[in-house]
Amino acid sequence: MKTVPVGVSGRHIHLTQEHIEALFGPGAQLTEFKALSQPGQFAAVETVEVIGPKGSFNTVRILGPARPASQLEVSRTDSFALGIKAPVRESGAIADTPGVTLKGPHGEVVLDKGVIVAARHIHFHTSDAEKWGIQDKQTLRVRVGGERGVVFENVLARVHPTFALDMHIDTDEANAAGVKNGDTAEIID
Amino acid sequence: MKTVPVGVSGRHIHLTQEHIEALFGPGAQLTEFKALSQPGQFAAVETVEVIGPKGSFNTVRILGPARPASQLEVSRTDSFALGIKAPVRESGAIADTPGVTLKGPHGEVVLDKGVIVAARHIHFHTSDAEKWGIQDKQTLRVRVGGERGVVFENVLARVHPTFALDMHIDTDEANAAGVKNGDTAEIID
Repeated sequence: MKTVPVGVSGRHIHLTQEHIEALFGPGAQLTEFKALSQPGQFAAVETVEVIGPKGSFNTVRILGPARPASQLEVSRTDSFALGIKAPVRESGAIADTPGVTLKGPHGEVVLDKGVIVAARHIHFHTSDAEKWGIQDKQTLRVRVGGERGVVFENVLARVHPTFALDMHIDTDEANAAGVKNGDTAEIID
Repeated sequence: MKTVPVGVSGRHIHLTQEHIEALFGPGAQLTEFKALSQPGQFAAVETVEVIGPKGSFNTVRILGPARPASQLEVSRTDSFALGIKAPVRESGAIADTPGVTLKGPHGEVVLDKGVIVAARHIHFHTSDAEKWGIQDKQTLRVRVGGERGVVFENVLARVHPTFALDMHIDTDEANAAGVKNGDTAEIID
């Protein structure tokens, strides 16, 4: 049985150091609020306002550390609320994606791209992947049981020696399946 | 191939005639805005404000005609926004469910129960069910393909000579699977 813990991603944003400083002031650094399941990643104390053509979210959590490109990850429900047609993408694949306006205590940033609905995926440490015969970029079927039981297809495997075993789904997927952080899922094939 | 059309249910409310009058005034009647897939059912012109302990929705669509019991159907995402722990239930099964406050142009109604997350289900005309060997109350597995492909388990079959073939899922389920009104799903077993 290939059992993986489930981590539910709420809407969040990754920012470049340049955008952190534009939003929070020259020399600003993110402050760690809580460590995440992937080593070195953290939820920051800082949040930003995210403003779309239809709606906005006042306090969107920033995840650190700073990245080479800014990227807002929302659920499809969120994308309708913002009025932004965000495509389903693997993290980092932001070519030809829509942008959004960000507002912080120091200033505004208009992203010309970077709004995505994150493709469901599982982080595997290389040793987990080897043990189960799973390759990086493979797509898997993964089952969550219970009252709202669901089999998720097209779950992307991401394998790396710095990863910790964790399946990442968004709030729509979690709510559709009735699962919460720390529940488990089973890889079918 | 057992193919069914998908209907996505946004948050909505069914009301008793007594509650319609309390909210809209003595003698008030619902006005038909749009016919729904099930014969005789309609979306009304009228909407109500729904107020939970944490949040509220200004304009929740009323579905008609009036029913013997009032019932608010929300997604799990909605239930978190309202701050109400709504259980997953079949329509009508509102014993031991939480209540909510409603506000209309004429007055307020405090429901002592009736807030549910509707269990995913398929309406079958008796002839469809017979053709496919499906019994009322049976649970099915139903697949939606595509980029966010999902197999929904525990899909309740509801069979009646007044029903039209339609699978009803909520906005969380639709967004998790990347489907919209009028897409199709396939009954696996």
